[in-house]
Amino acid sequence: MTKHDLFNQIQVKKSFLCLGLDPDIEKMPSQLIASSEEPLFDFCKQIVDGLHPLCVAVKINTAFFEAYGETGFASLSKLIYYIKSNYPDLFTIADSKRGDIGNTSLRYAKAFFEAMPFDSITISPYMGKDSIEPFLLYKDKHAILLALTSNQGSADFQFSENNEKSLFKKVIATSLKYDNADRLMYVVGATKADYLKEIRNIVPNAFLLIPGVGAQGGGLKDVFENGVNKQVGLLVNSSRSILYASKGEDYITAAFKVAASLQNQMEKLLT
Amino acid sequence: MTKHDLFNQIQVKKSFLCLGLDPDIEKMPSQLIASSEEPLFDFCKQIVDGLHPLCVAVKINTAFFEAYGETGFASLSKLIYYIKSNYPDLFTIADSKRGDIGNTSLRYAKAFFEAMPFDSITISPYMGKDSIEPFLLYKDKHAILLALTSNQGSADFQFSENNEKSLFKKVIATSLKYDNADRLMYVVGATKADYLKEIRNIVPNAFLLIPGVGAQGGGLKDVFENGVNKQVGLLVNSSRSILYASKGEDYITAAFKVAASLQNQMEKLLT
Repeated sequence: MTKHDLFNQIQVKKSFLCLGLDPDIEKMPSQLIASSEEPLFDFCKQIVDGLHPLCVAVKINTAFFEAYGETGFASLSKLIYYIKSNYPDLFTIADSKRGDIGNTSLRYAKAFFEAMPFDSITISPYMGKDSIEPFLLYKDKHAILLALTSNQGSADFQFSENNEKSLFKKVIATSLKYDNADRLMYVVGATKADYLKEIRNIVPNAFLLIPGVGAQGGGLKDVFENGVNKQVGLLVNSSRSILYASKGEDYITAAFKVAASLQNQMEKLLT
Repeated sequence: MTKHDLFNQIQVKKSFLCLGLDPDIEKMPSQLIASSEEPLFDFCKQIVDGLHPLCVAVKINTAFFEAYGETGFASLSKLIYYIKSNYPDLFTIADSKRGDIGNTSLRYAKAFFEAMPFDSITISPYMGKDSIEPFLLYKDKHAILLALTSNQGSADFQFSENNEKSLFKKVIATSLKYDNADRLMYVVGATKADYLKEIRNIVPNAFLLIPGVGAQGGGLKDVFENGVNKQVGLLVNSSRSILYASKGEDYITAAFKVAASLQNQMEKLLT
């Protein structure tokens, strides 16, 4: 899927919402747990079936599947194939935070772009150029590089005492020199909206994936004002606040309501 | 497996060799490819069956399994269960480079320490404290933190112009303050043996996993002299130079020969 296709979808759906799928059995509706043999797959399928008109992207957190070993991994694979064949207009993200020496990153790219048909994958920058470039070899696929994350631990290494030289800025600036850098997108935590404008100046054209709206806090309006570009250039993710809006029988309609409220706010910002 | 058990094994086997399993179908013996329905599992099984007396640890590069999607992941799971039940004296490493916000890292820990019975996992430090600590909650399990990697791209972010403030040192020093930091080990590339002594001064007691001896270059003697501690404290990994020593029928004996030569050098250094 190209960035232009993604921009088109944002215009069609009047939304830049990314639906985050972090299927947590302990938080799922007890009704579904009781009746399903494949709760990870079934829960996510139902959510996507119900909410796809409201979002342009779906981010699957692979850890929640890997936690169940090979059966979890099989559900992950089934889910991405289901989404890709039924909703080809959705931009799909493997939220997997991979990255290794070049020879190994090539295998991860193969895992998520060939064995499974994701449009993009989140990757960690720590190992540098040759750990990142293998993910950029695929036409119309994207690597979403961790820049500034929304968690507390981001303070440990992503910042320096001297803001000018903060690691997250070095990561973004350096990555622009990599081969096929136009296939890069960046993770920028919404809890750090103050830094969005600075980041947008370094990468005026890239899409930014913004986690942390919802359960992790962070304001949508601030994010939009500081991060928007000509193609909108933003994917704002919400996971838990949508998925677990209700544990009762109304879980799909409750989830729809939360997502619809976000889409509605986005529509207003877009016009 | 405790660090003390690992030290015991080093003394018993007179080896601090870590056998790296990166099963690459294109490099495997054609005879095995032709006859096996599960070449990833069978190749690794045969290598471990043949070489286990020479090594104290086995490092499975999960990317080489994930590249084949759910069938690859099933082979990974089968392999770690096979190794754990047949060779409980081997320290097992999931070379997976995981790490995410706390809630998600917990799932990765569950994946590799519960769904699969690994003793340890390699993790990326970029997201800081709450991305790392969930891996340290398990008694007798270990997280092996990327510090200084052996690839070219390590120069992008792990170093700074001012060596004093290099990121890899900050990562190690900061990690010592994390809860259960005594369960941490560190990846230190052997191509950077000059830095080993500095690192050993920061973490006198931790085990260091040293990739890059063999296919990636890096001298065993230098590594030993700069990195050894009271419990030896070193796991020197070799993957490709052992696994692909021969593509012919003699592939196990050829691999054994390369590993035995490494073990022999190690035995001399240990005495």
